[in-house]
Amino acid sequence: VRYLEEFEPAQKFASGRLSVEAARIKSFATEFDPQPFHLDEDRGRGSFFKGLAASGSHAAAMTMRLLVASELKPADGIIGVGFDEMRWPRPVRRGDELHVETEVLEIRASKISAGSGRDQGKDDDVESERRAGAGLCWQPDRAAPTAFLRRIARPA
Amino acid sequence: VRYLEEFEPAQKFASGRLSVEAARIKSFATEFDPQPFHLDEDRGRGSFFKGLAASGSHAAAMTMRLLVASELKPADGIIGVGFDEMRWPRPVRRGDELHVETEVLEIRASKISAGSGRDQGKDDDVESERRAGAGLCWQPDRAAPTAFLRRIARPA
Repeated sequence: VRYLEEFEPAQKFASGRLSVEAARIKSFATEFDPQPFHLDEDRGRGSFFKGLAASGSHAAAMTMRLLVASELKPADGIIGVGFDEMRWPRPVRRGDELHVETEVLEIRASKISAGSGRDQGKDDDVESERRAGAGLCWQPDRAAPTAFLRRIARPA
Repeated sequence: VRYLEEFEPAQKFASGRLSVEAARIKSFATEFDPQPFHLDEDRGRGSFFKGLAASGSHAAAMTMRLLVASELKPADGIIGVGFDEMRWPRPVRRGDELHVETEVLEIRASKISAGSGRDQGKDDDVESERRAGAGLCWQPDRAAPTAFLRRIARPA
């Protein structure tokens, strides 16, 4: 794991790869996003997507999986209070291989003490978490989350 | 279902409720976000969350489920190219009941013709989809997605 002091701007972390399977596209959609273009190839063809496409929620969840398993590994975990810019520029399809690239754009210590930000509902005040030598959170007012989420993509 | 002409600003749509179960918090996390505070009560207690908390990806997916099943029902489905402001102001925990409230803030016809926005990778140009009397998409540069996502919450 890495502690706050071990991160610095311009560091990059890569993930492994995750193959997208049609069966999981459909079963995820059945539970969380049961729309025809996420459930069935034929109905997908007649849709905006022109084929079966993974739910955006599924794509986001797979991204999280890759990120958690990547070399980023902040000591207290990957915890975020939000995103300011999240995009699905292309559909995720069966057979795609996803990977995530993360770049540290800025390091900033938290203004809040450990635990005090929980359940406050004042998300503008919740910043990165730092306590006794450990911690990193996504910051919704920073560009960092964008940097990696924009890079969800099939290999070129 | 509803077509574009049937939406107007200030319309509100409510969802049903979805109960959050500990077993699903853990199984979702096992697949997509295997961090201790999403997997185990005891390890959650020692974390930022002070207890077991659902993955943010899981919370977002449950939100989508509620939204798809709600009365919103745009004719061509709920399709989005992104969010400009997505927040998790409070942890989602076992026993919580989630619901979603949606409010239409603005109606805008698409500048693109059916299908032409797919796979362009120019997300700033992808706007709402409208074709032959049907269609609604989220628009990343509009405030609407924020409006409902901010309202994921346990009953007051």
